[in-house]
Amino acid sequence: MQDTHISLAHGNGGRLMRELIDEIFARHLASDRLDVQADAAVIELPPGRQLMTTDGFTVQPLEFPGGDIGTLAVHGTCNDLAVSGATPYALTLNAFIEEGLSVEQLDRLVASIARSAAESGVAVVAGDTKVLRRGEGGGVYFATTGVGVAPPQLELGMDRIRPGDRILVSGPVGDHGIAVMLAREEFGMRGDLASDAASVLPLTLAIRDMPGLRFMRDPTRGGLATVMHELMHVTGLQMRLEQLSVPVRDPVVSVCEMLGYDPLYLACEGRVVAVVAPEDAEQALAAWQALPEGEGAAIVGSVVEDRQRVILVTELGGERILEELEDDPLPRIC
Amino acid sequence: MQDTHISLAHGNGGRLMRELIDEIFARHLASDRLDVQADAAVIELPPGRQLMTTDGFTVQPLEFPGGDIGTLAVHGTCNDLAVSGATPYALTLNAFIEEGLSVEQLDRLVASIARSAAESGVAVVAGDTKVLRRGEGGGVYFATTGVGVAPPQLELGMDRIRPGDRILVSGPVGDHGIAVMLAREEFGMRGDLASDAASVLPLTLAIRDMPGLRFMRDPTRGGLATVMHELMHVTGLQMRLEQLSVPVRDPVVSVCEMLGYDPLYLACEGRVVAVVAPEDAEQALAAWQALPEGEGAAIVGSVVEDRQRVILVTELGGERILEELEDDPLPRIC
Repeated sequence: MQDTHISLAHGNGGRLMRELIDEIFARHLASDRLDVQADAAVIELPPGRQLMTTDGFTVQPLEFPGGDIGTLAVHGTCNDLAVSGATPYALTLNAFIEEGLSVEQLDRLVASIARSAAESGVAVVAGDTKVLRRGEGGGVYFATTGVGVAPPQLELGMDRIRPGDRILVSGPVGDHGIAVMLAREEFGMRGDLASDAASVLPLTLAIRDMPGLRFMRDPTRGGLATVMHELMHVTGLQMRLEQLSVPVRDPVVSVCEMLGYDPLYLACEGRVVAVVAPEDAEQALAAWQALPEGEGAAIVGSVVEDRQRVILVTELGGERILEELEDDPLPRIC
Repeated sequence: MQDTHISLAHGNGGRLMRELIDEIFARHLASDRLDVQADAAVIELPPGRQLMTTDGFTVQPLEFPGGDIGTLAVHGTCNDLAVSGATPYALTLNAFIEEGLSVEQLDRLVASIARSAAESGVAVVAGDTKVLRRGEGGGVYFATTGVGVAPPQLELGMDRIRPGDRILVSGPVGDHGIAVMLAREEFGMRGDLASDAASVLPLTLAIRDMPGLRFMRDPTRGGLATVMHELMHVTGLQMRLEQLSVPVRDPVVSVCEMLGYDPLYLACEGRVVAVVAPEDAEQALAAWQALPEGEGAAIVGSVVEDRQRVILVTELGGERILEELEDDPLPRIC
């Protein structure tokens, strides 16, 4: 490609678009499962329960410590399949590119998608690209749809949750939200602050077949507290979190205290929240702690038969009601 | 929903987003196959060859005679499955909504998606919504991914095309491109000008099992001429179109002549281009002409072993080279 920046002409279906697809998308994503000539890709799902999900990605900035919008586009969708008990198999990729985006940056992002897909054992089998007139300076938005396969007998769902169940998280919360926010605002803060964006498949596979596993979710937008609210809404039960048990990395605590954020409401992109029957909770925790992805995993609370609330038991032993998020403090987080 | 217009807060993962999803998306798209609570949807593809495809939609204006961006989002993706020989089964839907879009218009568009999906026998099984900061005034962009199933023994592809094969179109070309362009530019022209946006599944099913069928494609962005160029590139053969045979509706001819457009390069959204072995061409044509969707179907040209070009044999019997589209005359067409 001769151009250094994407223009509207690259989206117009002619020769320039063909070069864009060949030299960036096809080059990085090439596999025997991607055919840029065909109208539709052949897939061959392994036997089992078939699952399908989709997500859109509008993170700002496009690149941040620990990842980029391409990383999120792959892991975000694959993780939704993983927490549903599936092994991800194939992805489709939609790119909405704003005119003016540098070709070099686009190339980096698509390379990142390819790398993340390979790490996760999935192939991008089909895609589409559109070029948008210069607008909010977003640069690029992605949408990915994934299909995967779960064991047919697997029973997971909020409806399985019972009073007495334990709530687990697979690692420290808020890393992603803080990393993106700092990259965006350029506070000039240094330290060990990076997004936790990663595939959660090793974590979900490690506990998926335990009979006491009720439900799993990845706590993205709105964080752990928002997952608790979703559970509360559907089950009608009370969710109780123990502040002293919720893992948060020290640098994240510091930044949150400085800037007035609550890590319980900040996005993670490589964590699992699981609800597990009490008799299996310690075993699930041990299974996670045995994995590099599960470093810092903890049992953080429990489900009780009580007034429908999300309660945080504070360090001092008091109780604080965690309200439902009205308006995310950090938009454009994923 | 109390708000008349979408704001950034609707995209931020909290209560307002939940209302947006429940009151617009879930309400119109509700089915026993759509579960807005689950991270991933269970699907159950019928036996056969599994196909997956995706497309993005950025048409301007959002609504036009004969359809809207919702209609396109469903039919565009389902038609890519249909021309690959598949029966579409399920869709996912990504919405990127620009702040300021009227709730009323969004509601109309989602209702249109629901209607088009029902007409095509597919369900929207999963979706995601993002709200973008005010930008180019696009209003909303959609991406849809579809999965479907084709007969396992079906052999379709550009590699099957041979010299002597006939080129067929299922109806008049250029309707969609002109309809959208007039709706956009408000030339104040009247008449029978509407997009041909529709499911092509009846057309593809009607000829899919004919042994002489080589290849099918839906001529969207860039029109019939662009499909011819794609075939030329891959096969290395010459594509010859007969101007007198290519169906174009009179109002489209008039507008094109007035404004300097060539209908061969204008998008269709409800047509099929098929390449058929000569011995089956008349039978395929008859099968199409027997359908309401196939009114105006015609054999428009043939594939020859000659210099790699796309040739238009003119009304006067001369030959004109049809160049590859560099830059679409009508951006934002689908």
